[in-house]
Amino acid sequence: MRAVFMNAPGEVTVEEVARPEIKESTDAIIKLAATCICGSDLWPYRGLQPVQHHSGMGHEYIGEVVEIGSDVKSVQPGDFVVGSFCISCGECETCRSGYPSRCERATFVGAGNETGTQAEYARIAWADGTLVKTPAQPTEEQLPHLLAASDVLGTGWYAADAAGAAPGKSIVVVGDGAVGLGAVIGAKQLGAEKIIVMSRNPERQALAREFGATHIVAERGEEGIAKVLELTDGKGADGVAEAVGTQQSFDQALGCVRPAGRIGSVGVPHGVSVDLGALFGKQVRLEGGPAPVRRYLPKLIELIYAGEIAPGKVFDKVLPIEQAAEGYKAMDERVATKVMLTF
Amino acid sequence: MRAVFMNAPGEVTVEEVARPEIKESTDAIIKLAATCICGSDLWPYRGLQPVQHHSGMGHEYIGEVVEIGSDVKSVQPGDFVVGSFCISCGECETCRSGYPSRCERATFVGAGNETGTQAEYARIAWADGTLVKTPAQPTEEQLPHLLAASDVLGTGWYAADAAGAAPGKSIVVVGDGAVGLGAVIGAKQLGAEKIIVMSRNPERQALAREFGATHIVAERGEEGIAKVLELTDGKGADGVAEAVGTQQSFDQALGCVRPAGRIGSVGVPHGVSVDLGALFGKQVRLEGGPAPVRRYLPKLIELIYAGEIAPGKVFDKVLPIEQAAEGYKAMDERVATKVMLTF
Repeated sequence: MRAVFMNAPGEVTVEEVARPEIKESTDAIIKLAATCICGSDLWPYRGLQPVQHHSGMGHEYIGEVVEIGSDVKSVQPGDFVVGSFCISCGECETCRSGYPSRCERATFVGAGNETGTQAEYARIAWADGTLVKTPAQPTEEQLPHLLAASDVLGTGWYAADAAGAAPGKSIVVVGDGAVGLGAVIGAKQLGAEKIIVMSRNPERQALAREFGATHIVAERGEEGIAKVLELTDGKGADGVAEAVGTQQSFDQALGCVRPAGRIGSVGVPHGVSVDLGALFGKQVRLEGGPAPVRRYLPKLIELIYAGEIAPGKVFDKVLPIEQAAEGYKAMDERVATKVMLTF
Repeated sequence: MRAVFMNAPGEVTVEEVARPEIKESTDAIIKLAATCICGSDLWPYRGLQPVQHHSGMGHEYIGEVVEIGSDVKSVQPGDFVVGSFCISCGECETCRSGYPSRCERATFVGAGNETGTQAEYARIAWADGTLVKTPAQPTEEQLPHLLAASDVLGTGWYAADAAGAAPGKSIVVVGDGAVGLGAVIGAKQLGAEKIIVMSRNPERQALAREFGATHIVAERGEEGIAKVLELTDGKGADGVAEAVGTQQSFDQALGCVRPAGRIGSVGVPHGVSVDLGALFGKQVRLEGGPAPVRRYLPKLIELIYAGEIAPGKVFDKVLPIEQAAEGYKAMDERVATKVMLTF
């Protein structure tokens, strides 16, 4: 099968390798219907995070189950499934507490595999706790929406949820990438009244508005914070979804949130230091981490099948897997927001 | 009236000054039944926080209402009241959201006054939103318990609540001062199954056990963390109540909490820096700030009148107000946990 590898920063190849096989009785093998490149894949691509030679890439996926281990009960060969980028057993105390992203038995997709999900086939561990079967075989049009649910929509939704999005609330979204745009959908569906997106990219601004943003703030730093205060009666937003992960973006989130507000932090932090006194002084509730996407998947799939949300619009470039390197380059250069790979 | 002042680090005096008067129609004047010295008063006392010459001290209080402004409705002269150290209007959106500690109109007790509550009389702003009337005149024995509710019990209770104390949960309390001991009472009342207190002081250990601690860990730092992991099946505690506010204590809290656990932080942070990546990696929910004691007061008063809790046991020294300086010294030297001042 064909699979994507990273050999060094900036060096992506597609190679012909053996298909993954069932290793544990709780595994499933899926045939990917589509996959994609994640913003987090850019950290090693840019040399900002170590990259092991010949890393199998990819952790977002949708597809058809082709084989299951003897203990898998909830999915069968032929089922179409969406899974989270976090593997989860679904049974441990942490999974049951709503945090499958911190499952006591499992880890991320691709760990322990030679290949990730940027490949024709993938082995998914703990299939019963990780995969969710769709109510029907999806149409071609539904594929990108379901693929987005696997990570960026689910992660953005978690950010909005952790930020306390609810009827009557004002929510700021810091970051206009695919996750930030997913947070807009989440904030909207959770009933937020005011959704302020910080973005200076006209296409992303337009998509944010289509997804439910009520205000766009193009300014950054102190100027951006001042604009948000203006839009929130001088108080700051009830919640902020932080979808970048830099010191600048976190400081912006903290500047935009009101006293006794919330920050949902999903941008993987890279060297971000927080003054506890500043959080304490504003009495901010902070929650963040790898999103517990599995918790939200049934709801997200339901909304997609009902035609209520169209998160797949974040894919503004579709390439055959052979051209994966071009996809990485486009995202690195910010020519594309999110690249879908097909087979 | 007599009132306590701090003139410089380490220099506490008691002086005869004029009684405070009603300034706003929402004010009440109370005649203190007792007051006390707070751990946070030690920061300026030790020169670790700036001190203005002739600062009126004190923010914990119980007493009898002697005069009210024309707009005060919920209390009358003659009523016995307990109030929070945070003034709160009770009407703004932030108060109504459960965070009177971040009231949009108000600030802390004593702000704008010449004297604090370490005085015979005090002006309490926004009386309707700040004071809670007791169901009956208290007995002499109930006074210290009610006084503790005004800050240390309420603050400890908030730490336990923010740490997610609930039936079946394991809670670590970092800090064995009066607030930490209040957190033990809170964790117990909220139903926590395992309450682990980090303390090396035999008297405080004994009181912690009396209040409901199930385990004591005398070790600190990495050794202390290792002990907590041992007591929690190697996972870490479901929640940690952090009641100190130093880098060391916060790092200890973070080391003791399990993945997807919670930290309730009530120790006023002094130069504490948090690596967001560490919080994110463990997916810790963090909440902290000045405790919204007013939210808990009705429940705390009810438990005290029912004889269910005896938080006043944290007062291990009682002095007449003339000897306030001796009280500060005893707490500074850790000879006393908490000093009550009488008139």
